[in-house]
Amino acid sequence: MHLTGQNFIGFERAAGGTYTFFAVNPSNNQTLETAFFEATEKEIDRAAEKAETAFVQYRKKSGKERAVFLEAIAEEILALGDALIERCHLETALPIARLQGERSRTVGQLRLFAALLQDGSWVNAKIDTPLPDRQPLPRPDIRQMQIPLGTVGVFGASNFPLAFSVAGGDTVSALAAGCTVIVKAHPAHPGTSEMVAQAILEAAKKTQQPDGVFSMLHGVSNNVGLSIVQHHFVKAIGFTGSYQGGRAIFDEANRRLDPIPVYAEMGSTNPIFILPEAMAQQKNQLAEGLKNSVTMGVGQFCTNPGLTIAIEGSDTAQFMALAQAQFETTSAATMLTPVIQQRYENSIETLIQEKQVDCLARGNEATTINQGIARLLKTDANTFSQNPNLEKEVFGPSTLLVIASDKEELLDTARYLEGHLTATVHGTTNDLEEFSELISILQRKVGRLLINGFPTGVEVCHAMVHGGPFPATTDARMTSVGTAAITRFTRPICFQNFPDFLLPDELKEANPLGIWRLVDGVLQKSQV
Amino acid sequence: MHLTGQNFIGFERAAGGTYTFFAVNPSNNQTLETAFFEATEKEIDRAAEKAETAFVQYRKKSGKERAVFLEAIAEEILALGDALIERCHLETALPIARLQGERSRTVGQLRLFAALLQDGSWVNAKIDTPLPDRQPLPRPDIRQMQIPLGTVGVFGASNFPLAFSVAGGDTVSALAAGCTVIVKAHPAHPGTSEMVAQAILEAAKKTQQPDGVFSMLHGVSNNVGLSIVQHHFVKAIGFTGSYQGGRAIFDEANRRLDPIPVYAEMGSTNPIFILPEAMAQQKNQLAEGLKNSVTMGVGQFCTNPGLTIAIEGSDTAQFMALAQAQFETTSAATMLTPVIQQRYENSIETLIQEKQVDCLARGNEATTINQGIARLLKTDANTFSQNPNLEKEVFGPSTLLVIASDKEELLDTARYLEGHLTATVHGTTNDLEEFSELISILQRKVGRLLINGFPTGVEVCHAMVHGGPFPATTDARMTSVGTAAITRFTRPICFQNFPDFLLPDELKEANPLGIWRLVDGVLQKSQV
Repeated sequence: MHLTGQNFIGFERAAGGTYTFFAVNPSNNQTLETAFFEATEKEIDRAAEKAETAFVQYRKKSGKERAVFLEAIAEEILALGDALIERCHLETALPIARLQGERSRTVGQLRLFAALLQDGSWVNAKIDTPLPDRQPLPRPDIRQMQIPLGTVGVFGASNFPLAFSVAGGDTVSALAAGCTVIVKAHPAHPGTSEMVAQAILEAAKKTQQPDGVFSMLHGVSNNVGLSIVQHHFVKAIGFTGSYQGGRAIFDEANRRLDPIPVYAEMGSTNPIFILPEAMAQQKNQLAEGLKNSVTMGVGQFCTNPGLTIAIEGSDTAQFMALAQAQFETTSAATMLTPVIQQRYENSIETLIQEKQVDCLARGNEATTINQGIARLLKTDANTFSQNPNLEKEVFGPSTLLVIASDKEELLDTARYLEGHLTATVHGTTNDLEEFSELISILQRKVGRLLINGFPTGVEVCHAMVHGGPFPATTDARMTSVGTAAITRFTRPICFQNFPDFLLPDELKEANPLGIWRLVDGVLQKSQV
Repeated sequence: MHLTGQNFIGFERAAGGTYTFFAVNPSNNQTLETAFFEATEKEIDRAAEKAETAFVQYRKKSGKERAVFLEAIAEEILALGDALIERCHLETALPIARLQGERSRTVGQLRLFAALLQDGSWVNAKIDTPLPDRQPLPRPDIRQMQIPLGTVGVFGASNFPLAFSVAGGDTVSALAAGCTVIVKAHPAHPGTSEMVAQAILEAAKKTQQPDGVFSMLHGVSNNVGLSIVQHHFVKAIGFTGSYQGGRAIFDEANRRLDPIPVYAEMGSTNPIFILPEAMAQQKNQLAEGLKNSVTMGVGQFCTNPGLTIAIEGSDTAQFMALAQAQFETTSAATMLTPVIQQRYENSIETLIQEKQVDCLARGNEATTINQGIARLLKTDANTFSQNPNLEKEVFGPSTLLVIASDKEELLDTARYLEGHLTATVHGTTNDLEEFSELISILQRKVGRLLINGFPTGVEVCHAMVHGGPFPATTDARMTSVGTAAITRFTRPICFQNFPDFLLPDELKEANPLGIWRLVDGVLQKSQV
């Protein structure tokens, strides 16, 4: 596929700007072919206008029609074949096998949302039938369902160039909801982005979607993103990235005359607690499992466990020695971008310079540029609780061991934590019974709580919560992974005293879609 | 019941401040007995600390235990008897019959949420069962449900001294969700507030709720409210009131290091569209119905129809004459506070001074102080669309007729509207078929859309949406009336690979609560 470097304004292409940039191969710092054009204000405005016009038509499409669109996107992405994987590998240095897996996940995600639309019950239909004879006042006929918000601005993430980028979780859930989408492509993989955007637009044409249902804009500077956030036709934002980026978008969106929802997943440090009996019985597997989870994908996952908390003692000392050996023999690997690698090394340097923080282990040295070297750091719980810098996310293959002197200090460490995406507890049944208070405390801190596992690997399913209290995300009430992510781009509306012919199919008397509805408080699939 | 004027810090009372204020009877501007003490910073802090401590226990109570608490609150409010209605009447000038109705609604609301908790399915439980043999990776066991956010700050509203005040919709939905509550009492009805707070605390004691599950603070200045919004133990805000108040709270909450959700219902102008055939056939009933809806409760409802839009012609001219007659014979009535009455008269004066705005009718003159006089104003659609001041809420018994020259101009007027709580269309079947575009446009503008009715009167039921796009509310994704209001004070969490004994009852394998759960994508009540 020939790359053009242009922006996609619906079905048109535009490259009216003068600023261009190139993708860089992080394995060798070489510039990859094709100059990409940063979108101009006029192009951004045109994309937003098209998206608004398209929304008026797209929102009226049935769930089944939207499902066909999502399935077609999946097909078109697969049809890109190896070329997509190869370009993505050049731009990100992520291994081919990982990218193939990520493509499967991306396609699976599109199909899962298509199935959700085919089923149709996600709109959460509720019907309260009229009570014309009620005293002192009759009750009118009232019917509720979720409807789409409008145009959604999506920011591609660097660390999932397929599954959380152009056709990733934010885009698919917004399109499924009935929203039109403008993607701000991540400048670290613009070629991958162009290929996937092309696939989406092919699918849109083949399934007769309105021009403007999807646009994609390039930009290296913050201006493109900010213009999208500020645009009065944009009604919600999906973002995965850094705290600084997410907070800036959130603040900008709230400064609008009409503030809009921002779903920014800003990462977290995903603490793992290892309880005493598990530590005594499983120190070998724990040391190995921890190292695998921390260094998988060069530690470039939102759910990377950057904190590991245990109680001091001889078992913990042995575990530390085992973990040390694990980390010391880990190979360095190329990170997503030179900047990410630099930030990782700087963060580690800053951490090590903090008082009472030691470097227990350093992985194998880099064999080439832009590689991240695994690190195992250590501090004590008292130091940790007095230094907020130690809880901040370090994006890369490291974890900080926090050693508590006893159970109470471990619980206090948990109480002191801010919001994270996940927390994990390793414990035997005895441990879990004795530390039930820990489970209670952690429920208030995270979106996902795991027992005897590792947080990397986020299942795309109905029950998943990929979210959590601030600063893990800007909106703990939602998830950015799993079918519930669709709710982010919708709001409820109710129709009072509507004649049947004016109601959407979801709420019609006969229930023509056969969906689950709450009728007078009772869930049912039958007609009213 | 003897009023003390003190603040309720959980089960304690405190009056450490030096600033006091009195309630004023708006019928005669006389000060009512009892000095009320504005809460001090120390008292606010103590209430927040108690609320946080109580939350740790309260959130563990079962839904059934919380239901018993809500039912007990309903009983205690009823046990206050006529004394509550009388004090409330003195403080608000609202008629006794209206207040009795509002008490029924308040009690009914508590019982509806108790029933919701008894049923238990509101937690939206989802279970994805494990697939240990899946390739390339096994799927873990993942289970999701809604959990409470923490302490909620509730601002009492002036216009519903019972149903949207101390034990109103925000408080009951927060307590139902498992949150603890700190109410900032509205200074226009502090005695009513004290009586209801006392009832809640009696119920809390009788049903063994933790000290701090509920607190209530007095304050006239903005400081008390702002301190609640800023407090790090407060995790969400419910507010009903003015745009200025709501926006200030929203901005303050977003300035926090950890921003919190703000559900501010800031009112709206609730446009009514009258279509040609309905106008021709029903002008008499429409004129009377409009007058009744506009002047009910002296126009002091969030859903008061402050805009009435029609197409010019002889039928509309006749309708205007009929409406004029209706408004001109409407009695003035006492408004909630002297300030509200003054603001109403000022808003009307300002409107009339705008270009191309005429006063078609003025109701009967006031017979005593603080009465609101009904007004029927008129302008043309072109003027309306060029002057944003004309869309602003006027809190009181008035409506602005907006006359469009033709169908297209009426549709453009609808497109131009900002967010409102409701919109209403009066039309025959022919009208509704011809103006189906209007229904589409209005769906994007409001939380509730009515056909052939009037927006005043908000049913408390499952399907109600009392909300809408900014500036009607700060969060169009939620409703502040109806059972769905509980969702505002919750967020989802998921449990991965949990042993059954550690799971909440809602997610246990055997489904001991017998609730609806989405198991592998299928809704069911059986065990997994």
